[in-house]
Amino acid sequence: MSKGYTLVEIAKWVGGAVRGEAGTRITGVSGVAEAGPSHITWLAHEKYIPQLKTSKAGAVVVSEQFGETPMPAILVADPMLAVAVILERFAPPIPRPKVGVHPSAQVARTAGLGKEVAVGPNVVVGDGTRIGDRVVLHANVFVGNDVKIGDDCELWPGVVIRERCILGNRVAIHPNTTIGSDGYGYQFVEGKHRKIPQIGSVEIADDVEIGANCAVDRAKFGITRIGEGTKIDNLVQVAHNVQIGPHCLIVAQCGIAGSTQLGTGVVLGGQVGVRDHVRINDGVRAAALSGISKDIPAGAKINGNPAVDNQQFLREKALIRQLPRMAEQIKALMKRVEQLEATADDS
Amino acid sequence: MSKGYTLVEIAKWVGGAVRGEAGTRITGVSGVAEAGPSHITWLAHEKYIPQLKTSKAGAVVVSEQFGETPMPAILVADPMLAVAVILERFAPPIPRPKVGVHPSAQVARTAGLGKEVAVGPNVVVGDGTRIGDRVVLHANVFVGNDVKIGDDCELWPGVVIRERCILGNRVAIHPNTTIGSDGYGYQFVEGKHRKIPQIGSVEIADDVEIGANCAVDRAKFGITRIGEGTKIDNLVQVAHNVQIGPHCLIVAQCGIAGSTQLGTGVVLGGQVGVRDHVRINDGVRAAALSGISKDIPAGAKINGNPAVDNQQFLREKALIRQLPRMAEQIKALMKRVEQLEATADDS
Amino acid sequence: MSKGYTLVEIAKWVGGAVRGEAGTRITGVSGVAEAGPSHITWLAHEKYIPQLKTSKAGAVVVSEQFGETPMPAILVADPMLAVAVILERFAPPIPRPKVGVHPSAQVARTAGLGKEVAVGPNVVVGDGTRIGDRVVLHANVFVGNDVKIGDDCELWPGVVIRERCILGNRVAIHPNTTIGSDGYGYQFVEGKHRKIPQIGSVEIADDVEIGANCAVDRAKFGITRIGEGTKIDNLVQVAHNVQIGPHCLIVAQCGIAGSTQLGTGVVLGGQVGVRDHVRINDGVRAAALSGISKDIPAGAKINGNPAVDNQQFLREKALIRQLPRMAEQIKALMKRVEQLEATADDS
Repeated sequence: MSKGYTLVEIAKWVGGAVRGEAGTRITGVSGVAEAGPSHITWLAHEKYIPQLKTSKAGAVVVSEQFGETPMPAILVADPMLAVAVILERFAPPIPRPKVGVHPSAQVARTAGLGKEVAVGPNVVVGDGTRIGDRVVLHANVFVGNDVKIGDDCELWPGVVIRERCILGNRVAIHPNTTIGSDGYGYQFVEGKHRKIPQIGSVEIADDVEIGANCAVDRAKFGITRIGEGTKIDNLVQVAHNVQIGPHCLIVAQCGIAGSTQLGTGVVLGGQVGVRDHVRINDGVRAAALSGISKDIPAGAKINGNPAVDNQQFLREKALIRQLPRMAEQIKALMKRVEQLEATADDS
Repeated sequence: MSKGYTLVEIAKWVGGAVRGEAGTRITGVSGVAEAGPSHITWLAHEKYIPQLKTSKAGAVVVSEQFGETPMPAILVADPMLAVAVILERFAPPIPRPKVGVHPSAQVARTAGLGKEVAVGPNVVVGDGTRIGDRVVLHANVFVGNDVKIGDDCELWPGVVIRERCILGNRVAIHPNTTIGSDGYGYQFVEGKHRKIPQIGSVEIADDVEIGANCAVDRAKFGITRIGEGTKIDNLVQVAHNVQIGPHCLIVAQCGIAGSTQLGTGVVLGGQVGVRDHVRINDGVRAAALSGISKDIPAGAKINGNPAVDNQQFLREKALIRQLPRMAEQIKALMKRVEQLEATADDS
Repeated sequence: MSKGYTLVEIAKWVGGAVRGEAGTRITGVSGVAEAGPSHITWLAHEKYIPQLKTSKAGAVVVSEQFGETPMPAILVADPMLAVAVILERFAPPIPRPKVGVHPSAQVARTAGLGKEVAVGPNVVVGDGTRIGDRVVLHANVFVGNDVKIGDDCELWPGVVIRERCILGNRVAIHPNTTIGSDGYGYQFVEGKHRKIPQIGSVEIADDVEIGANCAVDRAKFGITRIGEGTKIDNLVQVAHNVQIGPHCLIVAQCGIAGSTQLGTGVVLGGQVGVRDHVRINDGVRAAALSGISKDIPAGAKINGNPAVDNQQFLREKALIRQLPRMAEQIKALMKRVEQLEATADDS
């Protein structure tokens, strides 16, 4: 990384074209405001376009349609995709425990590890658990009994996977997240909440990523499921028996209550709450902070609490903003009608 | 479990009556849609009743009043209670560390352990701490100094209990939950937030269950209390000096601010926020996502932010839905009044 | 602590004056309702003033203007500040691991520890990491490679600090909090969410305190920053590239989305959500549960979702409360206008 790469080399990685000084050497990626002359930058958001003028960046990645830039540019069809590729090339290597089992780890004799598995310090792996090839278990991870973990998974420090949960291939789970904790189920009997045993488990499909400090509860019976390619942000709650479809995005601090189902490609903005036993169909997009209390048809864009169609939400908000005027109009009307009535009486 | 049980046997567990083939053998419990011919199922919610027709379940648990079912049934007074009992019987055993102290655990010499205590790998127990009989400390649990834990408690991996906290009997705390962290208290002095020492502790009464990834802060002084039989879901925040009464239900991602009091049997739906120094009296039920900003009288059902009586909340939401019509009505009225005024002027 | 201190001694600590029996001996601090005759108490909130009459406290700290009290009093200019000082004096010592490295800890040979550092059981410290003087790493803390930690920091059990993050001096991080986890960034390519590498890091300035079970993500590139003296409560989400200024207060369960900036002295109440790429300027105060979706000018007090000026929020809420009356007024007006129209037609 010390010598960096020329714009010509970088343009090749991303199938782009260089405009301006093609020999410019780049040693890193940085934001528009922070970038120096050896950094390449990009426009994460259109509101940063004005900052480009004063940016000290050595180069910028822009779309082919983008106009003149004060520094050399790499022109591409999809700048965000190109930046992802460039970031990958500049990414410093991620430190991981060495392949093998750290002497302080406790791996049960009946557990089975695949090829090139890395088990860090203080990791615990329970009886009967099967772990696939090239899996990385960072320090202080707990994996209970009879768990199945596919190939190329990575569990970060402090992750807890309770017994009998199943993870597919290429699943990443970030620090301090809990998978397979008891669902929240009680029966009110003789003045007390009696626990309903939570005897099911959790299945997480291929290519799922789950953020830090989340909780995914095991099913009461059957399985809590997270579908292929779904990405979950930090501090998210997934209750027992929830069924999340493939390729969903669940932003930070969302909570999904028991037995609720999400279809394919559902997007929940931050802090969205979804009640139990509802179905959110394919492609629904819920704005941040929405509260979803009933089934939502495919493709709907919703907002508010209880969530309604986003257009309706915006209209209602605009009308609420006009309430003071409406109140005045009513008052004025009452006066005018009174006057009319007085005139009518007179005549 | 391999051979299962006949419906006659299962009916005996729950004091129910068999309708249909009493010899049907059941090996597990499953949801209506997923159940196979050797599973018993039930109706977790009335919206699943239509699915019963096409269910492949070998049997179903229903209430005595429930009509004909396509498969044999066990008739009981309270199906949810019956299913809880059946689940307990079919529950696979929960893996726990062996009775005794794992060689990798660090138990202070001055700590006292009761009978048949199980201390898992990498557990830390501090000086002067007293732990009751049959307590289970799973791997990577941290228990600080001078903590008291009653009998039959279970702390799951990654739980942290800081110094001087007290847990009653049969308390369960799920993975990665923190008990006794410093309360959030600062004094603004000369342009800086100066920390107010948090010298109190936390007391958790008998039969309390706390979910995964929660935080319960110690009191500034005195005690943060969670009452007997109260059940707390995942990712819940309980601030310093909060007093939660007995038999409450606090659903996932609720936040209860400093010094607030909850009476007996209070139910907070998911993501409810309660401000500091308020009192929520016995039996209050707050809908999910409510924001509670003042004292709430006993038995109230509330909703919204700031939370109001649920009936009022629903009425207001309905009226907001009618705002476009109201705006049109006002507009129409203005025209008609104008016309009347014109006519009046003419005459 | 057994013999306690006289009011004269305590008054000296806080620069106050004693009113009443100056020899009264105090052994602890307690709330108004719970205090006994050897406790000193104070009024955490004005709603507790009536409780003072029946309080059994041996003494009370009040402001110089405060009237007669049923027990001896210490009169001070700022009672909250005085109580902070008194609490510090009465605080029992906080148990910490001994100075030195616990034999079960895994400290990389290339890591550098300052003077009087205490490293507890099962702690992991990675390659190339530098730790300042008098730092305390409690049990089960994970510190990755090439991390820099200043002097006098304290990391509580279960804290995870990933590679290359930087902490200033006197930073405290409470149990089970994650610093430096991957930001949540994906690019939708050919029907799948492709991960955008998160190659940046996190910088936490001097005197920052972060609560339990929080998540602070590393930057996509560049740095996620938390400014000097800022205090963050429990279960807070700070997304990639967020820039938090100095001396902010972020109350429990807030979520701040990617690249958003907070100025100096911003206060976010509990459960506030802030969208990505917005700027909240100096001194803004957002009420609990607000949803902030655009830039906010300095000093604004905001509320609601989407958040608006607090006065406007309250006015709108009051008007919503009057909607039933408005609906009735419109109905009545329509009747009266109809009648007027009928009369006009008649004439």
